[in-house]
Amino acid sequence: MVIVRHEMGPRFSEMTVTKMGSCNLIILSGQVAENTSLGIEGQTREILKFIDRLLAHVGADKTNIISARIYLTSVGDYAAMNAVWDEWVPKGHTPARSTVGAKLIRPEYKIEIEVTAVVDAKEHHHHHDDNCIAQESDESNTKK
Amino acid sequence: MVIVRHEMGPRFSEMTVTKMGSCNLIILSGQVAENTSLGIEGQTREILKFIDRLLAHVGADKTNIISARIYLTSVGDYAAMNAVWDEWVPKGHTPARSTVGAKLIRPEYKIEIEVTAVVDAKEHHHHHDDNCIAQESDESNTKK
Amino acid sequence: MVIVRHEMGPRFSEMTVTKMGSCNLIILSGQVAENTSLGIEGQTREILKFIDRLLAHVGADKTNIISARIYLTSVGDYAAMNAVWDEWVPKGHTPARSTVGAKLIRPEYKIEIEVTAVVDAKEHHHHHDDNCIAQESDESNTKK
Repeated sequence: MVIVRHEMGPRFSEMTVTKMGSCNLIILSGQVAENTSLGIEGQTREILKFIDRLLAHVGADKTNIISARIYLTSVGDYAAMNAVWDEWVPKGHTPARSTVGAKLIRPEYKIEIEVTAVVDAKEHHHHHDDNCIAQESDESNTKK
Repeated sequence: MVIVRHEMGPRFSEMTVTKMGSCNLIILSGQVAENTSLGIEGQTREILKFIDRLLAHVGADKTNIISARIYLTSVGDYAAMNAVWDEWVPKGHTPARSTVGAKLIRPEYKIEIEVTAVVDAKEHHHHHDDNCIAQESDESNTKK
Repeated sequence: MVIVRHEMGPRFSEMTVTKMGSCNLIILSGQVAENTSLGIEGQTREILKFIDRLLAHVGADKTNIISARIYLTSVGDYAAMNAVWDEWVPKGHTPARSTVGAKLIRPEYKIEIEVTAVVDAKEHHHHHDDNCIAQESDESNTKK
């Protein structure tokens, strides 16, 4: 059983979960702040909260993250972003990470973060089958 | 049996396919338009056709896409790109997605799209073996 | 047994390795040059050496790379970067690849490269267990 789409909208899903062997591969859409009046620290904090919330939805948490990509509108915000990141990222479980400057879709966005995570597939898929693709969707929480 | 490289050139392959458990993980190179005289809608449409074609080559289609990353030369093209995307993306199977602004390699390129997909490994690999890496290449269709 | 973090620092790890079926999925942090006085060719060469070194740490090499993403501060460096890349990339094993322009974190950086690779899990994990997540860390070589 594989590919569960969470908070699925008509354009994209906030998260896809794919069973690969005994792992679920979790891919999040690029997360941006909802309160765009916030500065870099506030937007970063809000995004990290969104990531925590999405991962919790599939029984994972920030220790399950294997990679993160951070886009900054202004690379001058690197230190301020890191101050919030360093407080949040779990010591002993830090992911691979890249940070680059990019223009984001709305001028108010100061930062966007993508993460990939893995979690034990057994926790969520009690019925075993051999198919990789057996589409299942979670539209209960669709917001976009 | 794992890592099949499709439309392999001396610099990169258009697509790699890796067997992971019962899944094939499909990674496409960033796709750009060939007809660079087209506007954002035309370039987007052409790229989505390239993606359809590459996925079909391994028995997959757009419902198998788990994530997409879109680079726009001008973020002002976001709405026009989305109009084409929304028409193309299969409802009920939308991937995780990120869109950022970036300078592309040729000034005529208005958009570049990367996708990752998964498809059931059994459809394409009839002989089972336990090795993850058993290189096999598809150079039949090399274009670059 | 899954998620081994290599050269783990308090902020990120240089490489994460996740067991998925019979494969280890290897994700590297974006690599940048240490000798930032170098030009594009020198920085590219240095980064490719870092990638070789990290992959060797888990019994992999450049033929195991399935995808690469290249960020260039100046897209005008595309040809010079490719000259070094073409010499390095193993013919018959070229990865999926994307190259885009992006502002990098330090103004001296001319290029940053991310790669994803896979290697046979059996080579490194002699004891089989069914859990996807059984955290193990490699901090022996921590540099950041």
